[in-house]
Amino acid sequence: MTLRSFASDNNSGAHPAIMQAVLDANTGYAKAYGEDDLSIATDELFKQHFGRQAKIHYVTTGTAANVLGLRAVTQTWNSVICADVAHINVDECGAPEAFAGIKLVPVKATGGKLDVEAIRPYLFGRGFVHHSQPRVVQITQATELGTVYTPDEIRSITKFCHKEGLLVHMDGARLANAAAALGCGFRELTTDLGVDVLSFGGTKNGMFIGEAVVFLNPELGEGFQYMRKQGMQLVSKMRFITAQFHRYLQEDMWRANALHANRMAALLAEKVSQIKGITVSRPVQTNAVFAYIPHRAIERMLEEFYFYIWNEEKNELRWMTSFDTSEEEIDEFVTALQAAV
Amino acid sequence: MTLRSFASDNNSGAHPAIMQAVLDANTGYAKAYGEDDLSIATDELFKQHFGRQAKIHYVTTGTAANVLGLRAVTQTWNSVICADVAHINVDECGAPEAFAGIKLVPVKATGGKLDVEAIRPYLFGRGFVHHSQPRVVQITQATELGTVYTPDEIRSITKFCHKEGLLVHMDGARLANAAAALGCGFRELTTDLGVDVLSFGGTKNGMFIGEAVVFLNPELGEGFQYMRKQGMQLVSKMRFITAQFHRYLQEDMWRANALHANRMAALLAEKVSQIKGITVSRPVQTNAVFAYIPHRAIERMLEEFYFYIWNEEKNELRWMTSFDTSEEEIDEFVTALQAAV
Amino acid sequence: MTLRSFASDNNSGAHPAIMQAVLDANTGYAKAYGEDDLSIATDELFKQHFGRQAKIHYVTTGTAANVLGLRAVTQTWNSVICADVAHINVDECGAPEAFAGIKLVPVKATGGKLDVEAIRPYLFGRGFVHHSQPRVVQITQATELGTVYTPDEIRSITKFCHKEGLLVHMDGARLANAAAALGCGFRELTTDLGVDVLSFGGTKNGMFIGEAVVFLNPELGEGFQYMRKQGMQLVSKMRFITAQFHRYLQEDMWRANALHANRMAALLAEKVSQIKGITVSRPVQTNAVFAYIPHRAIERMLEEFYFYIWNEEKNELRWMTSFDTSEEEIDEFVTALQAAV
Amino acid sequence: MTLRSFASDNNSGAHPAIMQAVLDANTGYAKAYGEDDLSIATDELFKQHFGRQAKIHYVTTGTAANVLGLRAVTQTWNSVICADVAHINVDECGAPEAFAGIKLVPVKATGGKLDVEAIRPYLFGRGFVHHSQPRVVQITQATELGTVYTPDEIRSITKFCHKEGLLVHMDGARLANAAAALGCGFRELTTDLGVDVLSFGGTKNGMFIGEAVVFLNPELGEGFQYMRKQGMQLVSKMRFITAQFHRYLQEDMWRANALHANRMAALLAEKVSQIKGITVSRPVQTNAVFAYIPHRAIERMLEEFYFYIWNEEKNELRWMTSFDTSEEEIDEFVTALQAAV
Repeated sequence: MTLRSFASDNNSGAHPAIMQAVLDANTGYAKAYGEDDLSIATDELFKQHFGRQAKIHYVTTGTAANVLGLRAVTQTWNSVICADVAHINVDECGAPEAFAGIKLVPVKATGGKLDVEAIRPYLFGRGFVHHSQPRVVQITQATELGTVYTPDEIRSITKFCHKEGLLVHMDGARLANAAAALGCGFRELTTDLGVDVLSFGGTKNGMFIGEAVVFLNPELGEGFQYMRKQGMQLVSKMRFITAQFHRYLQEDMWRANALHANRMAALLAEKVSQIKGITVSRPVQTNAVFAYIPHRAIERMLEEFYFYIWNEEKNELRWMTSFDTSEEEIDEFVTALQAAV
Repeated sequence: MTLRSFASDNNSGAHPAIMQAVLDANTGYAKAYGEDDLSIATDELFKQHFGRQAKIHYVTTGTAANVLGLRAVTQTWNSVICADVAHINVDECGAPEAFAGIKLVPVKATGGKLDVEAIRPYLFGRGFVHHSQPRVVQITQATELGTVYTPDEIRSITKFCHKEGLLVHMDGARLANAAAALGCGFRELTTDLGVDVLSFGGTKNGMFIGEAVVFLNPELGEGFQYMRKQGMQLVSKMRFITAQFHRYLQEDMWRANALHANRMAALLAEKVSQIKGITVSRPVQTNAVFAYIPHRAIERMLEEFYFYIWNEEKNELRWMTSFDTSEEEIDEFVTALQAAV
Repeated sequence: MTLRSFASDNNSGAHPAIMQAVLDANTGYAKAYGEDDLSIATDELFKQHFGRQAKIHYVTTGTAANVLGLRAVTQTWNSVICADVAHINVDECGAPEAFAGIKLVPVKATGGKLDVEAIRPYLFGRGFVHHSQPRVVQITQATELGTVYTPDEIRSITKFCHKEGLLVHMDGARLANAAAALGCGFRELTTDLGVDVLSFGGTKNGMFIGEAVVFLNPELGEGFQYMRKQGMQLVSKMRFITAQFHRYLQEDMWRANALHANRMAALLAEKVSQIKGITVSRPVQTNAVFAYIPHRAIERMLEEFYFYIWNEEKNELRWMTSFDTSEEEIDEFVTALQAAV
Repeated sequence: MTLRSFASDNNSGAHPAIMQAVLDANTGYAKAYGEDDLSIATDELFKQHFGRQAKIHYVTTGTAANVLGLRAVTQTWNSVICADVAHINVDECGAPEAFAGIKLVPVKATGGKLDVEAIRPYLFGRGFVHHSQPRVVQITQATELGTVYTPDEIRSITKFCHKEGLLVHMDGARLANAAAALGCGFRELTTDLGVDVLSFGGTKNGMFIGEAVVFLNPELGEGFQYMRKQGMQLVSKMRFITAQFHRYLQEDMWRANALHANRMAALLAEKVSQIKGITVSRPVQTNAVFAYIPHRAIERMLEEFYFYIWNEEKNELRWMTSFDTSEEEIDEFVTALQAAV
């Protein structure tokens, strides 16, 4: 039976053109571990997007990108300030603590977003040997709640952090969705705003495997090639990862996919908000829609569709759209929802 | 320019039928993280190969398979006895120490193979609190030197280890090559011989990404799903890994590929051994050929071909064949070698 | 110049009788690493206090006791639920994360104390592979705020935790102060209530170095001797640690010292609460007094006395008394405080 | 019954003058964690011995000194080259791997000593991402076999290492014995020879607890205060550690104690070598004597005396003398030995 899913953008497969790029890369021998021509060309593409100073390292999961990127810029006595809903805090099974050795300091974040006023109270105990020393502020763009930081919001965080001797790490698992929403490029949302390290996602927006740790601050990332290898993330037949990124980094792919996913979410939100008894519960800025729906309707919908309950107590659901969500699927879903309510 | 490589079996791409399986898996939505139908079917296939008690967890690199598999069955105060040439000891950048916290005890291993007599002297200090406590003996099948343990050799190790309260871990990155060489199946080389944990490789024999941690001993592996996630190895769009394994685990694929690679190595060895000045330096039992060749010839060959120098002092080279090595490539290589010598 | 301190009970030296016990232990040779007669006798004393099933391991710092005790009973994918003000959360420089690899889940705790209602909301995501799995609830007795859990309060926590498959760890750096306050023995506050693991403190109540990890649950602690050694905490001339504990575990020492410290705190609280402009801000149940005092008075007092500002914004101070705090010191302090206000 | 021990210098108690210094430090309040006057004065004494650039951090065990000192100057992808008999390799239960994350590369070391020719073959794979990168060479002075590096021998190692971009760590658990044997001071054996980091021992030569991590290279050790705290080694009532060091660092203590211990070993070696059937098996340069004795005699001696069998197969024993070994004890031991043989 076909899965009818609004559970996550990672329930989608790969975009056909991404798959074709992988097929095309399957020609004869190539050097392993990223020394092949395609991987080198992909590095170059990343530099076009993020600036020539960028150092790019491909990994296989978002957790790996976050954990190794953070490990690279911290000592174990450092803490990382993040949103309470941050993926690193609630969805990585303690990997940052176990495999980077760092302490996370989760901060109550309205709409999934941090700001200077939320961060400031946690900058105490600096120089006090008994206290983990804050070193990184981590933000997610787009956030786990589907919201987007404006460039000004990011800049105010990076400016504050740099003045305080802190680095800024961005979890960009869905950076494409944010850039599409804001109508800008990757660089304008990262390097140009002073972001120091980035987890750049490919899997959720059309690729099938591939994430990258991107050091944007040229002073960071020395020796990271060893950390990636030691971190169990150095893929041998790398060309099949970079083939995906090489295709993905074209406008007609990353932006088109993200725009589509975002538009489908907007459409979904618009339609469900017209159903009596359903309230869209958060701003829909990228490809996630959160909504309160009657409890009985949840159960009925789960018989036919696959999605997550975000907050059991409040009957709040999360629906995600993807590059391949169709209007028909939304119509079907909305129709079923109307019936269920 | 086309790379002409005898450097490693991971310079090859993917077998076309593997690639087709990946393409075929790209249909609509599927549950993520291994809960999709294809992944479940692949688990089933593994159980057919290794026994119903087997627990299977897919990861993305051989280093991940080894490190997480060992981490799962040790305390940090344990040591792992392995061959001095073991991949975990010399080719994983210290990952077992850094990410599993264990101590490796490398043992001089003739032909890359351990035996009871080599292991026994390292079983001292048991119960002595100042000393790392031996817990695992690790063997590689086929070995890093291309040799193969016979079933009897493995059985004598597992029997000894179990009597001594030790577990046996097998690095099976090239288990297919060993099974092909011995004319038997996976189970006869692992479960049936008492191997406790296995790193099962797919990448080197026709897949493009995918390894597995397989717990064969039913008492092991509890909770490993958390360790894999925390170990940054839980791939979201898992079906594209398991699609490869699902195809790979057919006889016409894993065995045919391995047989071919082994045969090409035998052919290469036979031909080069007829060249005056060249000596094949180790038994050729799977898909690796080691040879001494004159120093000047090495440099000439490196201008045209890609391969590794195994031992600079002794001018010993390593050449590896793969599922897609052709007789023509061998002929070309041998002809060039004759000229170079 | 003599330090006039109400900063911490660890500003005190050692009780003279403790020091004498150390002197008395300095006779000739003794086996190292805890195999000497005095250490064995001290183990026996601990068993008299905590039950024969107890396993006792001496360490040198409270952080070591907490971190290694928690490491012993968790997997790295586990989380430890603790009070937001817990020593492990705010005063150990991230040691639990870095050296035990666990995730701490700090919970807002009124008066420094957890209860079932505070814990329950954090027991979500169990069995969900993306989420750290709760395994331990940690409570501090007496708490970092000087308050005391009643036996009933502890029992309700242990009962709930065991039903939920969780263990209870107690940070007993000041367990003596709690037992003195409650008029009971150690066992009645720990083993008898179902506490599973204990950090037992000696340094803050009359000893000069020495803490212990005590496994009360007989199913826990196997192999801990290796973890302690590996955790850099196996002292060679152990008799000089255990000599202190051997003396300390007598009623006339641990209880007398703690009763005195508690009484001095009560006296201090009583006296300062009569000064206009000063408010004792928290219940005084053991040897800590918290008070709001006018900002200007803080600065004046710091010129002559040594103590910590607990909350800069609120001008809240923490004063601690010890086994050797005298009434005269309190009178001097109160007099100076009156003048400063 | 009194223990009659030649097992280890840590079977001795404390020198009476050390104990007196601890008693003298027990006066009233003092700041904790090393901020007290006595600790500050002790830092100053260390600087007089090792140079003003030295950074000194006190810890409680030799394992802590080694592990944290190495952790401070390495990345986890680094390896540490050490003698096969090094304490870090065989007597620390895998602590360097588990708690510093580093890979040890043990090198066959004649007489317990490394030299450039022994080290050089292990400097391969530099810049090769699959290989742990050598970063530190660790030497023990005096060695675990009781031998002593001459200043020239150390200088040749440091010179080579620095040229190769490596640091030199010295395990100086018995540095006093080496300095006494060579008739020089600490600085002449460390700072002046280019040693970068030192574990400085106190416990084995008259103190009862106390070791130090000393960064001699001024470019190293930044932030180590956090690592020590996080490493569970920041003692609160520090004055009782530093009181010992403050007394210990006088010539009449460290040197006198070490000279005595060394002389007793020389005496013991001289006397036992005159017993027929006994062969002193290694050079006696500090306070250890190794000897082959008939198997039957070992058993008889163990009934009355406490010592370790170094090599069971060869019937080789290790006897250690200490600051408080008396000539009478040696006479008794030798007499018993004669009878036993």
